[in-house]
Amino acid sequence: MIIVMAQGASEDQIEKVIAALTLKGYDAHRSTGTTRTVVGAVGTGRTPLDPREFEILPGVQEVIRITEPFKLAGRSFQAEDTVITLKDVLIGGREIVVMAGPCAVESEEQIEILAGAVARSGARILRGGAFKPRTSPYAFQGLGEEGLRYLRGAADRHGLLVITEVMDAGQVDLVARHADILQVGARNMQNFHLLKELGRARAPVLLKRGLSATIQEWLLSAEYIMAGGNRRVLLCERGIRTFENYTRNTMDISAIPIVKKLSHLPVVADPSHGTGLRDKVIPMARAAVAAGADGIMVEVHHDPETALSDGPQSIYPEQFTELMAQLRLIAPAIGRTL
Amino acid sequence: MIIVMAQGASEDQIEKVIAALTLKGYDAHRSTGTTRTVVGAVGTGRTPLDPREFEILPGVQEVIRITEPFKLAGRSFQAEDTVITLKDVLIGGREIVVMAGPCAVESEEQIEILAGAVARSGARILRGGAFKPRTSPYAFQGLGEEGLRYLRGAADRHGLLVITEVMDAGQVDLVARHADILQVGARNMQNFHLLKELGRARAPVLLKRGLSATIQEWLLSAEYIMAGGNRRVLLCERGIRTFENYTRNTMDISAIPIVKKLSHLPVVADPSHGTGLRDKVIPMARAAVAAGADGIMVEVHHDPETALSDGPQSIYPEQFTELMAQLRLIAPAIGRTL
Amino acid sequence: MIIVMAQGASEDQIEKVIAALTLKGYDAHRSTGTTRTVVGAVGTGRTPLDPREFEILPGVQEVIRITEPFKLAGRSFQAEDTVITLKDVLIGGREIVVMAGPCAVESEEQIEILAGAVARSGARILRGGAFKPRTSPYAFQGLGEEGLRYLRGAADRHGLLVITEVMDAGQVDLVARHADILQVGARNMQNFHLLKELGRARAPVLLKRGLSATIQEWLLSAEYIMAGGNRRVLLCERGIRTFENYTRNTMDISAIPIVKKLSHLPVVADPSHGTGLRDKVIPMARAAVAAGADGIMVEVHHDPETALSDGPQSIYPEQFTELMAQLRLIAPAIGRTL
Amino acid sequence: MIIVMAQGASEDQIEKVIAALTLKGYDAHRSTGTTRTVVGAVGTGRTPLDPREFEILPGVQEVIRITEPFKLAGRSFQAEDTVITLKDVLIGGREIVVMAGPCAVESEEQIEILAGAVARSGARILRGGAFKPRTSPYAFQGLGEEGLRYLRGAADRHGLLVITEVMDAGQVDLVARHADILQVGARNMQNFHLLKELGRARAPVLLKRGLSATIQEWLLSAEYIMAGGNRRVLLCERGIRTFENYTRNTMDISAIPIVKKLSHLPVVADPSHGTGLRDKVIPMARAAVAAGADGIMVEVHHDPETALSDGPQSIYPEQFTELMAQLRLIAPAIGRTL
Repeated sequence: MIIVMAQGASEDQIEKVIAALTLKGYDAHRSTGTTRTVVGAVGTGRTPLDPREFEILPGVQEVIRITEPFKLAGRSFQAEDTVITLKDVLIGGREIVVMAGPCAVESEEQIEILAGAVARSGARILRGGAFKPRTSPYAFQGLGEEGLRYLRGAADRHGLLVITEVMDAGQVDLVARHADILQVGARNMQNFHLLKELGRARAPVLLKRGLSATIQEWLLSAEYIMAGGNRRVLLCERGIRTFENYTRNTMDISAIPIVKKLSHLPVVADPSHGTGLRDKVIPMARAAVAAGADGIMVEVHHDPETALSDGPQSIYPEQFTELMAQLRLIAPAIGRTL
Repeated sequence: MIIVMAQGASEDQIEKVIAALTLKGYDAHRSTGTTRTVVGAVGTGRTPLDPREFEILPGVQEVIRITEPFKLAGRSFQAEDTVITLKDVLIGGREIVVMAGPCAVESEEQIEILAGAVARSGARILRGGAFKPRTSPYAFQGLGEEGLRYLRGAADRHGLLVITEVMDAGQVDLVARHADILQVGARNMQNFHLLKELGRARAPVLLKRGLSATIQEWLLSAEYIMAGGNRRVLLCERGIRTFENYTRNTMDISAIPIVKKLSHLPVVADPSHGTGLRDKVIPMARAAVAAGADGIMVEVHHDPETALSDGPQSIYPEQFTELMAQLRLIAPAIGRTL
Repeated sequence: MIIVMAQGASEDQIEKVIAALTLKGYDAHRSTGTTRTVVGAVGTGRTPLDPREFEILPGVQEVIRITEPFKLAGRSFQAEDTVITLKDVLIGGREIVVMAGPCAVESEEQIEILAGAVARSGARILRGGAFKPRTSPYAFQGLGEEGLRYLRGAADRHGLLVITEVMDAGQVDLVARHADILQVGARNMQNFHLLKELGRARAPVLLKRGLSATIQEWLLSAEYIMAGGNRRVLLCERGIRTFENYTRNTMDISAIPIVKKLSHLPVVADPSHGTGLRDKVIPMARAAVAAGADGIMVEVHHDPETALSDGPQSIYPEQFTELMAQLRLIAPAIGRTL
Repeated sequence: MIIVMAQGASEDQIEKVIAALTLKGYDAHRSTGTTRTVVGAVGTGRTPLDPREFEILPGVQEVIRITEPFKLAGRSFQAEDTVITLKDVLIGGREIVVMAGPCAVESEEQIEILAGAVARSGARILRGGAFKPRTSPYAFQGLGEEGLRYLRGAADRHGLLVITEVMDAGQVDLVARHADILQVGARNMQNFHLLKELGRARAPVLLKRGLSATIQEWLLSAEYIMAGGNRRVLLCERGIRTFENYTRNTMDISAIPIVKKLSHLPVVADPSHGTGLRDKVIPMARAAVAAGADGIMVEVHHDPETALSDGPQSIYPEQFTELMAQLRLIAPAIGRTL
C-alpha cells in the first residue's frame, strides 16, 4: 500500500501515518519528493490493511493498493495454466470442454433423453439442477436428492461427467456424493460459509461470477476456496448487471481474456444465463470460445415450452448440434480443439 | 401480462399465443386494432407467467407485465403505512427512529460505552454485529453468541432495543433469543432459504437492499418473508453499485420516496454502508431524513482507529450528537418528530 | 401506448385518460376486464406521446410503450439486411469488412506505412483521425484538413476506402470531400445538430454507440440520420460504462446479435476502444466476428510507443496480420467470408 | 504517477521504465523494497502521462496516478469556497440560491406568469430553455432568440437573474447577451469545442454532470472552462445512469458532499431532471439541500399537462411555494439561510 500525502502535509501528519503503519506491523518506507511525500507500507503486517483507515488521516491525499489481494489464484503464484483432470476430461488444457443439459432435472426420462442428445453432439459434462433457488416460493424447487441420482445415472450411461449446483454449506457432502464438479451460483459467490466448506471438499468447484461482482471480487472468492485447501477451481462468467436491460444481464466477454491473464484457473462461459434468451445463446457461445474460454456451459432442452424453469433460455438439441459444429470450426483459429 | 403481436402477425400465431395462455390457466382477452393485435392475460393462472416464454413465440413483438409481482408488500394490498410497535418504539409512525452503535461488538466494555453514548443522544435502538461476514478468512469474525449477550445487556441497561444481523437460516433462533429486530445483510437479500426461515420468526426483520438489486427485487424479497407469515418487515437502503467509485457504493436516496409510494412498509437508510466514508455519513443521514426515511441506522465508535471492522465509516459519539441535533431541526420540515 | 388503470380507478379517472389521448389526436381503445381497465392509444396523433404524462394522471397504474420508437431503422420497416456498396466493397453482405489504421493521422509517412501494412493483410477501409477530441486542451488535436489529404492519398495508393470522424456539423462538407464514410464518435451520438446535418450528406455514416446509450437510444440516433434522408448508416459497438473498471469500457458483444435482430443496418465492432488495452483487442475482435458482426474496426500502429494518441490500444501490424488469419478461420463457421 | 514493477521484474525492465519516463521529460524516483521495485514520476514533463503506456511495458504490474488531474477546480489550488456574485445574489455563500421556472419558454405570457410565481415564493434566478435538444426531430425545438427576450423581460420585471442553456459554441455570444448564467446540458459536458468557447465568456457557467460521467470527469470539464480564463463555474448534479430504472436517472446526492470536499466551486442540484417524476422532485430537493447543496434548480409550470416539454417533471407553483417553506426550515440545520 502506498500513502500519498497532500502537498503541504505537515511533518507531524507524516509521522502519524508512519506510526499507524508501524502499529499494524508494517515497515514504512518514506520517500520525500520536491512537492510531496509518499509513504509505502512494506511487509505483511498482522492484519490486512484497509486503505480507508489511512485515507481519513489528516494530511493524506490518497491511498493506493499495490498488491493484488489474491495470491493462490494469481499468475504470480503459478505461471502455468491449471489443468483439472477428471477421468479422461482435461479442463484448462488444449481441448475446449462443453457442459450441457437442462436447467433443472425434471424426471428420469427427461434427463436420460438430454444426456443422450448432448453426449452424441460432443458434450463431455452433463449439467442439471436438483436444488433450484427460485424468486417465487410457489415455483418448482427441484427434485432434490432424487434428481441427483437421475443425473448421475444418465451421465454414467452416456459416458459424461456431472456438474450440479450446491446451494448451501449443509449440502456439500450430499451433492459431492453424486457429482464430479460442484457449482456455486452467482448469488452465492460471496456466501463465505459455503466457500469455506467447499475449500474442504475434494471435488473441483465451478464458481459463477456474481451479478455485480468485479473481476477482483470474483478472484477473491476463488482465493477463499483455494485457501481452504481446494485448488481445483473453475471460474464461470455468466453476465453482469448494467444499465442495458434488453437482455437480462450483459455478458462480459472481455472478462475471459482478462481473467486468463490475471489467473491460471480455467475460465468457462455460460451464455444461457449470460443472455437469458435462446436466440442469443448461440452467438454468445461462439464469441466466448473465440475470446479464449476453456469451456462453455449451455442449457439444452428437448421441450423448452414445458420446461419447469428457464425454458426461454434453453436451446433445442438440434441447435446444440449445430453450435458444436460451429465451435469445431472456431477452435483451431485459436489453437484449440473440441 | 399483455402480449403485443408484431404487425403482420398471422391469425395462426395469435391463436397459438392464446392457446399457450389457456394452457397455463389464464383467460386470454384479445383486442385487434387497425395495425396490430394485443392479447391480455386475465386471471391468476396455475403458475406465475414468465414473460420470456411468450416473447419467443413466433409473431410476438413484445410482452409486458402489468401487475406488480409483489402483493402483500404493496400499497394496493394495504393503503395505510405499516407501523411496527416494539415496546415504546413505533417504527413507521410520526417519529423518526434512530438505530446506532458499532459495526461489530468487540467487548463488553466497548458496547457498554457506546450504548450509553447513543442512548444519551437520542437513539432508540442499539446496533452491533456478533457474526461478521468478512471477505478475508483472516479478518475478525465476530464474538458470536457472547457478543449477542453483551449487546442485550448493554441495551437493557440503557433502555434501548437491539438490532443485529442473522447470517444464515440456522442462526435465526439463536439471534432471535437476544435481539428485537433481525437484520438481513445486503449479500443475503436473495438467500431464499434464510428468508423462508425469517417468515416463520416472530421478530420484525430489517431487510437490506442488495448491492445490485432493483427496487422491485427488493420488494419481492420482502414479499418472501411476508408470504411466510411475518408481516413486520423494514426495508433498508444502503447503497447500490454504479460506475462511480469515488464512494464504495452510491447511496440511492431517491429509493426512499419511491418505496414509500409503492409499499406501506417502513423505510430506513444506512448512510454508513451507503457511503463507506465517515465525512459523508452525516450529510447523507440528513438527506435520507429530508427525503422521508422513517429511520436511519448509523455506525458509531468511540475509537474508530482501533475498531476491528469498518472503523473508517464509523462516526464519533460527538459527531453523532451533532447529527441528532441537526435531524431534530430537519424533522419538522416534513411533519415528523425525532 | 397502453395505459393500465389501477384496481379501483373511478369511471371519471378513466374518462380523463381517454380525453387526454383524444386531445393529442389519438383514438382511445378501452378494454375493461374483471379487475381492471386498460386503455390503448391507437393512431399516430399530432405529437409523440410521453408516457410520463399519463403516469401521473390520477387512477393510472402504469403506462407502457408498445411500438418501437424507431421506424426506418427497424426490421418491421425493412426485413432484409441493408447492404452498403462503396466501389467494390459491400458492407453488410456476406463478406466481413475490416477497417484498420492508426488512431490519429500523424504524418504523411506514418499513414503511408500503415495503409500499406493493413492493405497487405486484407483490410478494405483505412481509418485515421484528422480532428481529435481530447480531454486535455494541451494534447495533440490532430492535423486537420492536411491529415484528411494524407489519409485520402495513402488510401488511394493502396486501394482502400477512407473512414474518418466528423466532429461537428460545420465539418461535414469538408470531411465528406475526403472520406468515403463519415464517423460519429460516441460522445456525439446524441448531438442532434450533427445528426441532422449528416441526414443531408450523401456518404454513409458510421454511428458509434454512446458510452451509456441503450440499444434503443442508439437506434433512435440512427433513425435521426435516416429520417433526414440518408439511409446508409452503420452501427458501431465500442463499449459501455459499467461498474467493472478493469478495462476502460465493457464491450457489449451481445449488442451485436440484438441489433442484428432489431435492425437491418450493418453492425461493426471496435475492440480497440471497446477494451482500451492492446492484449484484449485481438480476442475481442474474434469474439465480435463470432457473434455476427458485419465488420470490425481496429487501431493499428507500427510504433505505438511514440503514437500521439491511444498508443496502448493500438496493435502492431504483425498482430493485425495474425488477427486477419484467425478471422479467416472463424468467418466460415458463421457462413461468412473475409 | 507511480509505476509498480512486478515481483521478479528484471533490472533491464526497470531501466526501460525509467528511460521511458525520462524521454517524456519526467524525473524518475526509484525505490527498491524487499519484494518489489516502485518507480515514481516526478515533475511535470512535456506532455501528460497516459498510465496505459506504462502498464503495457514488460515487467510492470500496475500504474497508479497520484495527482488529481484537475488543478484550478481543486481545493489544493484554492482552499476557500468560490462565491459567485451577480448583482445582489451570492452563489456559494451562506444563502442557498433557488433557480426555478419552466423547462421551455413557450410564450411571453407563460414566462411572465411563472416568473411572478417563483419570485413571490423566493426564487432568485429564473430558468427556461429557448433552444431545446430533443430526441425526436418532430418535437418542439424552442422559441430561439425570441424566447431569450421573453425570459429576460420577465426576469427583469420580477427582479430575477436569468439562467438558460447554450447548446453549441456558435450560440455563446447570442445567449450571453440575454442571460446572466450560461447553462451546459448533460449531453454537452464533454463537448470540448463548447467548453473552450465558454472559457472565453464573461458570464458564469453552470455545468451539468453527464449521464455517465464520473465526478473526476465532471471536474475535468470544469477545469477546461477555467483553464480558458473563466473561473466562475457552478457544478450541477442531475442524475446518473444506473441499473435501476424506476426513475429516469438515479440522482447521486452523495456527489454533493464529495464535490464540496474536492472542489471550491458551488454545487447545485437539479431534482427535476434527477428524477423525472413530479412527486419525487420535492423530497429530492429537500435531500439535496440537507446534503449541503449551494442551490437547487427546479422546473415549475402552472399548467404542466399542456407544457410543450417535460411537463411530468414540473411541479405546480403551489408545490414550489410549499417546497420553499420546507427548505427554509431545513437550511438552518446546516448553518445556511434561504
